[in-house]
Amino acid sequence: MSAGTRSVILLSGGLDSATVLAAARAAGHDCYALTVNYGQRHAAEIAAARALATRHGALEHRLASVDLGQFGGSALTDPSLAVPETASSGIPVTYVPARNTVMLALALAWAEVLEAAEIHIGANAIDYSGYPDCRPPFIAAFNALATQATRAGLEGRAPVVVAPLMQLGKADIVRLGVSLGVDYGMTVSCYQADAAGAACGLCDACRLRAQGFAEAGLADPTRYRSRPR
Amino acid sequence: MSAGTRSVILLSGGLDSATVLAAARAAGHDCYALTVNYGQRHAAEIAAARALATRHGALEHRLASVDLGQFGGSALTDPSLAVPETASSGIPVTYVPARNTVMLALALAWAEVLEAAEIHIGANAIDYSGYPDCRPPFIAAFNALATQATRAGLEGRAPVVVAPLMQLGKADIVRLGVSLGVDYGMTVSCYQADAAGAACGLCDACRLRAQGFAEAGLADPTRYRSRPR
Repeated sequence: MSAGTRSVILLSGGLDSATVLAAARAAGHDCYALTVNYGQRHAAEIAAARALATRHGALEHRLASVDLGQFGGSALTDPSLAVPETASSGIPVTYVPARNTVMLALALAWAEVLEAAEIHIGANAIDYSGYPDCRPPFIAAFNALATQATRAGLEGRAPVVVAPLMQLGKADIVRLGVSLGVDYGMTVSCYQADAAGAACGLCDACRLRAQGFAEAGLADPTRYRSRPR
Repeated sequence: MSAGTRSVILLSGGLDSATVLAAARAAGHDCYALTVNYGQRHAAEIAAARALATRHGALEHRLASVDLGQFGGSALTDPSLAVPETASSGIPVTYVPARNTVMLALALAWAEVLEAAEIHIGANAIDYSGYPDCRPPFIAAFNALATQATRAGLEGRAPVVVAPLMQLGKADIVRLGVSLGVDYGMTVSCYQADAAGAACGLCDACRLRAQGFAEAGLADPTRYRSRPR
């Protein structure tokens, strides 16, 4: 990252992507925030993303909508599948097939038009849910694709996907964000947040988030409906 | 390809993808047709895709909509950019940034839920417009990505993208399709088709198509507004 770099920031409205936006701005990037509504249950995230884009100085904020829910296969998009409220092993039912591939493809489209140098995504592989598309080999494979998929790539200037949080635990992410002025009370991580953004306190995303604040020794500003255990 | 294979077919409603669907059905595949409305001007293609899916025995036909037009950068999605009506060199202004990446990502999402073995796309690199995302290295890079991006990939059964027309010229594609019973009068290739699907006869897509029929020595059933030169 260097000052003046033009970057597309995938901004879900959650804790991780808010931190990514704040870090890119702190490094002097010109930030173009992209929120993808893929039919997730937690639509409160979209309102959060809009507020975060404004607070953290994104030059533009775009919303792209695509209905991954029509394909089913995930508790985040299919109301007939329950979001688990206890820890599980393996890839959980909240995995959305090809979600990060779709989101990065949309970011790539905008990045190519903007002639952006980078695409930032909040994927991390430490305190995470085990999704295949949050791991370093996925990011590397997408970068290889971008060099072949685009005019920019053939001209040797494909946008590069950067995942600045990849090797950070949740406590480190929270510490970083607080140091950069992120108000985590504005962010929504919960897989089943209500319309006002209040968190269930029970799902995987709530558990990882609450553990992060606890480990960092920082106050957790999240509005939980049930206190996370 | 083998009989009984479950395959997602990207079906634009144009000449190439109609041929791909017919070939997959002829090989005995169970076909799931996916049409992506990405904000292209030529919406008549979508109606054509629906009719072709029915005629050629797709088990299901889904439409996924995503607004790539909001990012601009292409004459296919931006009404302020003219579609060229003379041949040009290099990647033309009808190139839609990251279009095939977005379409394959959506196909990958559905394919993973269906546990499909293959994804078929009508990309070809012989009589084509020079788009970067119609070349063999792009398909190979997407396949490498699919193995890392999905649960199916981590379990060693990622859907494989197949581009059966990649090395065929337009005349060969037309001959193949006619032998398989494709009614090309139902397909729409033109970049500026009118609402009834009538073709301009002037754009790159019309020129390549008309040359294909001429070289194959077959009658061209396309309804042209201007006779292609």
